[in-house]
Amino acid sequence: MINRFAAASLAVLVSGSPILAQTVYPIDRAEILSGAQFDFKIEFPDRVDPAKLKVTINGEDYSAVFGRTATFIEREDGKEQSALMLRDVALARPGPATVEVSDGTRSRRVEWTVYDTGSRKAKNVILFIADGLSPAHRTAARLLSKGIAEGKSLGKLAIDDMPHMALVATAGLDSIITDSANAASAYATGHKTAVNAMGVYADRTADPFDDPKVENIASLAKRRLGLGIGLVTNTEVEDATPAAMVAHTRRRAAYDGIVEQYFAARPDVLMGGGSANFLPQGAPGSKRKDDIDYIARFREAGYPVATTAGELNALAAKSDTRQLLGLFATGNMDGALDRKFLKGGGVKKFPEQPDLTEQVQAALNVLSKKDAGFFLMVESGMIDKYAHLLDMERAVYDTIMLDNAVRLARDWAQARGDDTLILVLADHNHPNGLVGTINDDMSVTPNVQLRERVGVYDKAGFPNYPAPDAEGYPSRVDVSRRLAIFSASLPDHYETFRPKLDNPNEPTVKGEAPGTFKANEKYKDVPGVVLRSGNLPAMMRASVHSGEDVILTATGPGSERVHGSMDNTDVFRVIADALGLAPAASGAIEVPAR
Amino acid sequence: MINRFAAASLAVLVSGSPILAQTVYPIDRAEILSGAQFDFKIEFPDRVDPAKLKVTINGEDYSAVFGRTATFIEREDGKEQSALMLRDVALARPGPATVEVSDGTRSRRVEWTVYDTGSRKAKNVILFIADGLSPAHRTAARLLSKGIAEGKSLGKLAIDDMPHMALVATAGLDSIITDSANAASAYATGHKTAVNAMGVYADRTADPFDDPKVENIASLAKRRLGLGIGLVTNTEVEDATPAAMVAHTRRRAAYDGIVEQYFAARPDVLMGGGSANFLPQGAPGSKRKDDIDYIARFREAGYPVATTAGELNALAAKSDTRQLLGLFATGNMDGALDRKFLKGGGVKKFPEQPDLTEQVQAALNVLSKKDAGFFLMVESGMIDKYAHLLDMERAVYDTIMLDNAVRLARDWAQARGDDTLILVLADHNHPNGLVGTINDDMSVTPNVQLRERVGVYDKAGFPNYPAPDAEGYPSRVDVSRRLAIFSASLPDHYETFRPKLDNPNEPTVKGEAPGTFKANEKYKDVPGVVLRSGNLPAMMRASVHSGEDVILTATGPGSERVHGSMDNTDVFRVIADALGLAPAASGAIEVPAR
Repeated sequence: MINRFAAASLAVLVSGSPILAQTVYPIDRAEILSGAQFDFKIEFPDRVDPAKLKVTINGEDYSAVFGRTATFIEREDGKEQSALMLRDVALARPGPATVEVSDGTRSRRVEWTVYDTGSRKAKNVILFIADGLSPAHRTAARLLSKGIAEGKSLGKLAIDDMPHMALVATAGLDSIITDSANAASAYATGHKTAVNAMGVYADRTADPFDDPKVENIASLAKRRLGLGIGLVTNTEVEDATPAAMVAHTRRRAAYDGIVEQYFAARPDVLMGGGSANFLPQGAPGSKRKDDIDYIARFREAGYPVATTAGELNALAAKSDTRQLLGLFATGNMDGALDRKFLKGGGVKKFPEQPDLTEQVQAALNVLSKKDAGFFLMVESGMIDKYAHLLDMERAVYDTIMLDNAVRLARDWAQARGDDTLILVLADHNHPNGLVGTINDDMSVTPNVQLRERVGVYDKAGFPNYPAPDAEGYPSRVDVSRRLAIFSASLPDHYETFRPKLDNPNEPTVKGEAPGTFKANEKYKDVPGVVLRSGNLPAMMRASVHSGEDVILTATGPGSERVHGSMDNTDVFRVIADALGLAPAASGAIEVPAR
Repeated sequence: MINRFAAASLAVLVSGSPILAQTVYPIDRAEILSGAQFDFKIEFPDRVDPAKLKVTINGEDYSAVFGRTATFIEREDGKEQSALMLRDVALARPGPATVEVSDGTRSRRVEWTVYDTGSRKAKNVILFIADGLSPAHRTAARLLSKGIAEGKSLGKLAIDDMPHMALVATAGLDSIITDSANAASAYATGHKTAVNAMGVYADRTADPFDDPKVENIASLAKRRLGLGIGLVTNTEVEDATPAAMVAHTRRRAAYDGIVEQYFAARPDVLMGGGSANFLPQGAPGSKRKDDIDYIARFREAGYPVATTAGELNALAAKSDTRQLLGLFATGNMDGALDRKFLKGGGVKKFPEQPDLTEQVQAALNVLSKKDAGFFLMVESGMIDKYAHLLDMERAVYDTIMLDNAVRLARDWAQARGDDTLILVLADHNHPNGLVGTINDDMSVTPNVQLRERVGVYDKAGFPNYPAPDAEGYPSRVDVSRRLAIFSASLPDHYETFRPKLDNPNEPTVKGEAPGTFKANEKYKDVPGVVLRSGNLPAMMRASVHSGEDVILTATGPGSERVHGSMDNTDVFRVIADALGLAPAASGAIEVPAR
């Protein structure tokens, strides 16, 4: 116990401000898939003499272990700090690997674990990431889409009714709170990194594209097994979650560079919003800073391109569609509530956006032509965006949409004889709670604040949304007894206790001081509104992520490894094991016992 | 789909205000353990002619099915409303049971399912109820008691590291939000009921002790298998969670009556706070409304009584202790943070209260003498009380205490060859979120509000609590970088952003208007404090429960039934099945395959 905590304190010091020893990447306690590529980097806190350096792995000189010698950088970033960098190495032999570094005066020791996989169990893997999906969204989606009678649900969600479940810890290397880049990167690579980073350890240099890389699932699956790769989202395709499957950068906002990396990686299916960074600067809607037309490049590389649901479905139905680029909006796509019912957000501008279920069906049609199998990541990404904006109805509708997409994939897999591992999980939580209902029929005098209509305990009763349609969506959210989902992290804002029927909620606008935000006065005259003072710094414009474990549910071959308490890096390991990604694994599919 | 929702709408109408048809107890879709006793009641909305009544079960007259005739109440509660009541009946044959009721003009039909169990798999069952345990408490307890280095936990909680896990839906018959009575009653009986009720369906009459009963686990385990029964809590023993294992009342606050029912049921082990309602009125500290001395009665019935940790441990060590009453405070016991470190709350008055681990050890010592096996319920009940009071540190310390108690029980069971089913779950959530850290070292000007020190995302970093002691508790909570757990349901209160070192937090005091509460000015002069306007009605004095699913983890024989999405009534079914409680089951223990 004591020793473990001594290690912990040291680690905290190392990741904090005063750097006392060398920093080694991959970090201490890293778990590394046998054969997976990574960049080996050592950062020295000051300038060192290369003649005095000694770097060993399990006692053997590193250059012998990796077969190559690292580049010595005497003054990294022009500062009095040296570094060693060796890119694209790998370790084959499973077991512990002790890295010892000495510059003649100071030394550092880190322990890695190189792990093997079993033989391949799954032909395909589908990873559903419900960005920001929280327990309150899940329970609310069940209430709205399945109904409830006398307290018992009338049905189960596809995301819940799965044989295996685990709690997944989400902290990053730098913080107990992760963002979507860091979180998705852990799933995609098996390594934790820092907020805003993906596919790299975030090093000390300024360049956001030179950080030490770790290989991601898209590269491994393609390189080792020739799998098809699909990325489907309803956010911008350059956004953190899909990008982390392919890209390497410590700056998630570097959309132009991410598009460049997408083109280099050529995922077989790539779908979402975010055409702005595919278009050359000057083109209508473009946000690129150069003249490259990536839509044209993808076309030249053989990708048919869909920009509407109609085009998507037509391409998906064609037997010779083997690759597919779908870009359905310049920015984020719109969620189910706006697309199907309210017509707010960007729906007027992009009226023919596909549903996530159509995107998944198209991806399955295309990818199932890959004899070798495929890896498909599907993100229901607007759950997170709406949760940030305190727009609970839109977040819940997109949770229902996620569930429909998961059901579609499960039915598809079942019809094939269950050769596909399906994982469903969030990347992080939002601090939301379902505290009851808001009941307009409560007999409170008209000028009393609406908070008096928040029904808790027995006064919550049951909401009175209309029965859901065939897809599980009630046709209205502005009912007289509606779910009360609130956040525990708030900027100053006006709480209206009502759904936003025109457009997604905008709780804040820019404040007077630079970089600050204040309550959006758009809502200040809503009858009964409450100006709520927040608990977040004024620089926060919206509700923030929270650090609780997320729920992982799983089915299909390899899903039996999902149980108990897991780290988010273990999700990568479940995928790697199901696919048999280690060199020792045969790559042939072991047919699971039925 | 359509038909199910038609049923749902009807059910909502029935449970709402205008009663259009007869109400039948047990309710529609009730699942009834074969051989378990229940009261059969029909409430007619008006006065009916008994000659015209027809009540059948699967087409056969109810009196033939049950072997007895019900009491007809012409004007129930003196109103123009008739009722039929038949107490203590049971159904043996598994399968659907359709109840049809007609009064000559109106009719009602409900469907029950009578279920069997397999043969007995577990000698003992230990049900841990972590009252109000929420994901934020769980993650925080892991951070504090296990430590974390570069984002990876340095250990696992005993409550997480279990082979089986499920999400448990918590809604009650009357509301999407449950209280602890209704929730624990679902675990104890397999039937949902209403807020404040336990072991009964809450009927329309005024009497809180005449409602139609359902048999609970304590009665079944004792009656059918002769098991020992133990109830351990650190709240008042009369409080909802322990009481629901034994008592039948629609009013959880009826403590005097609950003590009377405890004495009638004679659980072998009964431990917690709450001596006030065992003492005759007039005795120091008594809250009873009569002259009965229940401590004396229990003594006369052969129970040794412990009032301190020392007495408890001495009794637990004695080989002839076969029953045990432990009452360690007049009200609730104190949590781990006060007992072990801060000495606030009631610790000065009751300085020798045992730890929950000592209570569990004593209960195991006593109950393991039962050759037939035992059912033990252990509640870590102050997690909930502290969460209500927005006192996150105390809630997290009691989560660590729960974890210690679970580890003790798991070690005990393992040493015996795993003959014991252990279940750990909350009864409901609190809407708490771990949004980051509160960082006193953040460079903000001294007169800036403390909310500017709330570190989110990468600014959260890691907390700097001291390394935990041997029991997993850091010795201090007033550190400079501490966890920021906030609630999404708030009364008006002063947010100090600091732990309360003197006594548990008291966010509100009575307001001017009767039945209302306002912010407690005790905290208004804390430097940097923020007066936060709440989102709850003024009648709420504290944060409230939330309606998300709770997490159930399980190990031991019978735990393989724990997976996917479950209803809270299914928890009873898991226990009943593990013990083989149906008459068809042999009662002999089937040794599980190892």
